[in-house]
Amino acid sequence: MRSPLLMIPGPTNLDPQVLEALSWPSIGHTSPEFHEEFNELLYLTAKLYKTKKENVIVYSGSGTLGMEGAVASLIEPDDKVLALITGYFGERFAEIAEIYGAKVKRLVYPSGHDVNPEDVKEALEKDEYKAILVTHIETTNGVYNRVEEVAKVARRYGVLIFVDVVSSLGGAPFYFDNDGYDVAFAGSQKCIAAPPGATLIAISDRAKEFLENRRTEIKSYYFNLKRWLKVMENPRIYLATPTIPILRATRIALKLLHKEGLENRWRRHEQMAKLVRKGLTELGLELKARRSSPTITVAKLGKPIAEKLQEYVLKKHNVLISTGIGGESKDVIRIGHMGIVNREMVELTLSAIEDALKNLN
Amino acid sequence: MRSPLLMIPGPTNLDPQVLEALSWPSIGHTSPEFHEEFNELLYLTAKLYKTKKENVIVYSGSGTLGMEGAVASLIEPDDKVLALITGYFGERFAEIAEIYGAKVKRLVYPSGHDVNPEDVKEALEKDEYKAILVTHIETTNGVYNRVEEVAKVARRYGVLIFVDVVSSLGGAPFYFDNDGYDVAFAGSQKCIAAPPGATLIAISDRAKEFLENRRTEIKSYYFNLKRWLKVMENPRIYLATPTIPILRATRIALKLLHKEGLENRWRRHEQMAKLVRKGLTELGLELKARRSSPTITVAKLGKPIAEKLQEYVLKKHNVLISTGIGGESKDVIRIGHMGIVNREMVELTLSAIEDALKNLN
Repeated sequence: MRSPLLMIPGPTNLDPQVLEALSWPSIGHTSPEFHEEFNELLYLTAKLYKTKKENVIVYSGSGTLGMEGAVASLIEPDDKVLALITGYFGERFAEIAEIYGAKVKRLVYPSGHDVNPEDVKEALEKDEYKAILVTHIETTNGVYNRVEEVAKVARRYGVLIFVDVVSSLGGAPFYFDNDGYDVAFAGSQKCIAAPPGATLIAISDRAKEFLENRRTEIKSYYFNLKRWLKVMENPRIYLATPTIPILRATRIALKLLHKEGLENRWRRHEQMAKLVRKGLTELGLELKARRSSPTITVAKLGKPIAEKLQEYVLKKHNVLISTGIGGESKDVIRIGHMGIVNREMVELTLSAIEDALKNLN
Repeated sequence: MRSPLLMIPGPTNLDPQVLEALSWPSIGHTSPEFHEEFNELLYLTAKLYKTKKENVIVYSGSGTLGMEGAVASLIEPDDKVLALITGYFGERFAEIAEIYGAKVKRLVYPSGHDVNPEDVKEALEKDEYKAILVTHIETTNGVYNRVEEVAKVARRYGVLIFVDVVSSLGGAPFYFDNDGYDVAFAGSQKCIAAPPGATLIAISDRAKEFLENRRTEIKSYYFNLKRWLKVMENPRIYLATPTIPILRATRIALKLLHKEGLENRWRRHEQMAKLVRKGLTELGLELKARRSSPTITVAKLGKPIAEKLQEYVLKKHNVLISTGIGGESKDVIRIGHMGIVNREMVELTLSAIEDALKNLN
């Protein structure tokens, strides 16, 4: 069987050039050749975040490892943190902050609702916080948060702002410097359309200062962004053996992304999202998110047939879509339209779902 | 330029079948296909450790991430730990234990000397410890520690024994169950001859019990082996997106390894090591390690020409060897003869070094 079209919220379909980079003969992580490539990867990552090269860190690991790096390095025991929770990954962000000793105040929204910046303002009026944790695009329900509005509030109150951009970076407008975020992290396997295994992090000068002035030592070896910043300056410093093939493939994926143009890419994602939303609502399905994202669309089926539908679409049409995560798994489908996804792929997916709905009724 | 022959202590040369697996079209980490492959990977890993499938954990990350997982999960604040240090990676092991709050007593050997089990006995007579940390083969100087002797002492005193097998697993005799280790971790990019990016961990029933009976919570999200054990039982549980291409390539590399036969492989590594040792001493170089390992050989040059020699051998013969790490970097060369390295590759390397020594004198 030929491999299925991936219409899931990552890993995504890979361009043949990215696949090819994966199987280049191995090189040493201490070779000048690899260091040159790594520096280009950092440069391309900075361009993606719209920040400077000195403010990005790339290391091996998924978005989760980026999240833990950000928290372990910038949160100290007893720090007060405001967590804005619009789904599973927002809750995980809060949970990791608690592991590192933060006192977390949760603002939990019903699944499908996005963060209201007014609530953030109110919370910051009432209490003092060191940091706000927020998810840009929530992978579980497709909710698209107005993080730039949250950042505006955070800056007004002098609070650090941490953003999970795992499912948005490269697929939705994000201006790290301009909108004044402090730390953000993404995974290679989402909108960048590289294989999983690299996390791309941006860190502000203000956050770097916090890093330097910590009261306590960072309680992890690998998740120590202070050490990683030194490796970024000089990739000859050894910290851990990097996942070389993934970093090389990510560099090629980023080159392709910038060749298309970041703004063009954002526009394409939005167009694909519109097609998906239109198609699904025409099929009688209701969208899960009030403010739906350009990279993931989640629709309610109205009955617990998600797994059956997934199986049908895969077997009959060779298209892979996702079911839900956790409690919501049975009656929602999640469609990723990120990375190199085009109109033809979206149309194929929609007609496959249409066929499935007809035959499963 | 064709890519160089890698004669470094990892990453190693890859078999074409392993390279090919890297560039298979992407699949989802939640697909049944991937779960089947992952289960086979666990089975092959258990066979490599000579333990049962229930006692292995594989997750994305290098050997360093395996080390931090073992320490974060099994060491608690104020635990007394005996660290046997025969080089850079032994010291790192101690350092990570300290990050997680251990009270570490260091037994430091001069570089080149291996651990004397009598010293361990003496230390355990004098004081009570929860665990011993030891490196099987020290990547920095090629020292080959008699960990099975250390394990014997540890068991007699009821102390947990943690072994770094990053540079030995698959390349040197290691019997996890039979010799009674408690936790061991390796990297995919060494003797297994897969690309970097997976860590292979073994954990004893006794260590699992300690895990269950911890006084305190594990202070990391990713490095929580309790969570990982559940994922190994059921790979459908989502913890973090795995580095799929690396895990697939590792599975293929392990299949090739077991096809050769683990014992045959150990024998081949020992044969290659003998050739290298003989060749280098005939060239007038002195070996760094008193007890040299079957996977890495480190030789003293007698003058600080390591980098020049490395460059010469690479440019003129397209063979990559390593210089030292840290303080010892300038007057030693490190040769990895692990994974798929054969007699022809060793001979090419030795003649390249001979040529370099002649021309750099």
